[in-house]
Amino acid sequence: MDTNWGPLVHEKLSQAARLLDQANLDLWLTFVSETSLRRDPALDLICPFGLTWHSAFLITRDGQSLALVGRYDAPNLERLRAYSRVLGYDQSLRPLLTETLRQLSPGRVALNFSRSDPASDGLTYGLKLALDEILQQAGVPAERVVSAEAVLGRLRGCKTPGEVERIRRAVATTEALLQEVGERIRPGISERSLAHFLHERLHSEGLEPAWELEADPLVNTGPGPESPGHALPTDRVVEPGYLVHFDFGVRQEGFCADLQRMWYVLKEDERDAPEDVLRVWQGVRGALLAGAEALRPGVQGWQVDQAARQVLVGQGLPEYLHAFGHHLGHRAHDGSTVLGPRWERYGDAPYGVVEAGNVFALELGAPVPGRGWVYLEEDVLVTEAGVEWLSQPQTEVRLIGGRA
Amino acid sequence: MDTNWGPLVHEKLSQAARLLDQANLDLWLTFVSETSLRRDPALDLICPFGLTWHSAFLITRDGQSLALVGRYDAPNLERLRAYSRVLGYDQSLRPLLTETLRQLSPGRVALNFSRSDPASDGLTYGLKLALDEILQQAGVPAERVVSAEAVLGRLRGCKTPGEVERIRRAVATTEALLQEVGERIRPGISERSLAHFLHERLHSEGLEPAWELEADPLVNTGPGPESPGHALPTDRVVEPGYLVHFDFGVRQEGFCADLQRMWYVLKEDERDAPEDVLRVWQGVRGALLAGAEALRPGVQGWQVDQAARQVLVGQGLPEYLHAFGHHLGHRAHDGSTVLGPRWERYGDAPYGVVEAGNVFALELGAPVPGRGWVYLEEDVLVTEAGVEWLSQPQTEVRLIGGRA
Repeated sequence: MDTNWGPLVHEKLSQAARLLDQANLDLWLTFVSETSLRRDPALDLICPFGLTWHSAFLITRDGQSLALVGRYDAPNLERLRAYSRVLGYDQSLRPLLTETLRQLSPGRVALNFSRSDPASDGLTYGLKLALDEILQQAGVPAERVVSAEAVLGRLRGCKTPGEVERIRRAVATTEALLQEVGERIRPGISERSLAHFLHERLHSEGLEPAWELEADPLVNTGPGPESPGHALPTDRVVEPGYLVHFDFGVRQEGFCADLQRMWYVLKEDERDAPEDVLRVWQGVRGALLAGAEALRPGVQGWQVDQAARQVLVGQGLPEYLHAFGHHLGHRAHDGSTVLGPRWERYGDAPYGVVEAGNVFALELGAPVPGRGWVYLEEDVLVTEAGVEWLSQPQTEVRLIGGRA
Repeated sequence: MDTNWGPLVHEKLSQAARLLDQANLDLWLTFVSETSLRRDPALDLICPFGLTWHSAFLITRDGQSLALVGRYDAPNLERLRAYSRVLGYDQSLRPLLTETLRQLSPGRVALNFSRSDPASDGLTYGLKLALDEILQQAGVPAERVVSAEAVLGRLRGCKTPGEVERIRRAVATTEALLQEVGERIRPGISERSLAHFLHERLHSEGLEPAWELEADPLVNTGPGPESPGHALPTDRVVEPGYLVHFDFGVRQEGFCADLQRMWYVLKEDERDAPEDVLRVWQGVRGALLAGAEALRPGVQGWQVDQAARQVLVGQGLPEYLHAFGHHLGHRAHDGSTVLGPRWERYGDAPYGVVEAGNVFALELGAPVPGRGWVYLEEDVLVTEAGVEWLSQPQTEVRLIGGRA
């Protein structure tokens, strides 16, 4: 853990107390165990390392922050200097947590579960059953237990300046590596080789992937999968007349980037991308800009998606079957509001309201039959004045080879 | 994903059907979404890659295996060639899952929740609420919904020969790297430097850590933390007369090792470890062997812990405040039965029954005041005849330096 997490955690704990107060909640309780098996994403914000034993983190609206952890974990928590109290235990957390809850005697208690926001849904059902008993023993009636999603979504979504700076650096690193891999695109090289190059670079730089390594990067070339969204790299090779597309991000200092870039491989007699590629490019790029234009504080997520989607479809291109944008932060998909259509699978997430300080990845694309995919993804910060681009947007089709 | 997962997954799906039948359960249902945020550990066994959209995996006692996933994920699932059917969807999983459940019309349905086994507790509460509605719509009454912990614990715990081979290779790699770092121990080097060396080696070999990188390895030297269990490496430096202790493991081909090794740093006038170190060494090593001796099919987890614990305490050494052993597999702490004391924090896990084919990491230790810790951890396979050592056990105090 080279990163100095203490100040970042301390900042998030203070922010959490303010958000609790605004939401009229008295206590936010995170309850975890064996986090290397199933890590509550809320820990990204309040505890940067793993916990083996049952552990409870209690944040109150009046600014108290308590960490109740196994004795072995207590020194790490103390070293953070972020919590007002760290309490260790040996055989069972239950009596310590029950007594602590009795003393706090909270009104409304918020737990990490959510139907719509996976980043606010880290409490497992087994842990919920155990916690229900403890809350009952502590005299907290079930009807005072509510979802923490409103607080947690805003806590995750409203980045502090320190968080934005880290995301900015992760984006710069990701762009540099995409530049490197772009220089290696040539006819005959396989998707898998290009992915392997980026894996080697991640290893040699000591960087983590922003999501599961086997899908980071995604690489697509030629008339391949039905969709470029999730298909893992194959042995398919680059050919002249194909598009080459990457979806890639690094996690650096605990924060992610998530970018997509695309190239066209010229045939020997070509000097520019052909008409069919350029037509899709213009449609995709135009739709991305329309979505970015619609992204400002106060709008709901689905409105931003709709702005991009309508422009794309209005140019005769097929509708993308995913959301236009997602939060970006500790994770590549950072939960909270989704800039997506009002489809059932997104639950309430598209109805969330965009705020200044949010960081989003914006993405969409369309196929060029017989050649591959034009897909773009850019990372942006929402400000009062609209978006600030954290990435240097791709503004034209990048070209490989052709006549010198 | 260089590993060829298809056959391994296929083998686990067949094993799951047999275990369902033995447990008189009709359907095992795994329900997940956004697994890069909160990955159900059951996916280790049945789906080796990440899933963004809501996905359901249905295994029946008569051997059907169905994967219901977002359209973009379907090609990856099909390429596995492990499931009898892969069904893709676009806007919502709900109608597809409801209809599939109606057709299967199962009696007892097992879900991934557990009070005692974190590896069987991957279903989050938000997903549980959504699933309850779907089950109700599909005509499955709530009283027929049970925990999958019995099936899932055995499915995880009873390793196939292919799984054991992979663990064996991860153990060999871990031992080789511990050997390398051992050669770098010298007075003046810090815990952090030693950890950094292993991190560099992980990167250069393209290996994953077996648990969170910041705590893998743990390195302890000298009169440091109250316990060596979880304290992260510090700037404390090795000195003559100190012990140096590592807790380290790699994850390779999807499987983990988990080993502890220790060295004594000779003072200039010493040729062997001093009396106080040797006394603790003998106690620790003897207790580890007593535990390994007690580990055989049919015993309960706590009995194995008790055998080791009694020998340690009987030699006047302090009791370790954790379990003696844990399953090892896809994860370093692989859930299911714990070889641990009957303390509340372990729930029912110490009452599980050991089976042939289980792989455990066995660990215990004790402090040597003023010098550090003697801690050992070995990895073993349970056979009908007792344990087979997968690691080459440390059989003596390893020595650093001293007079040539």
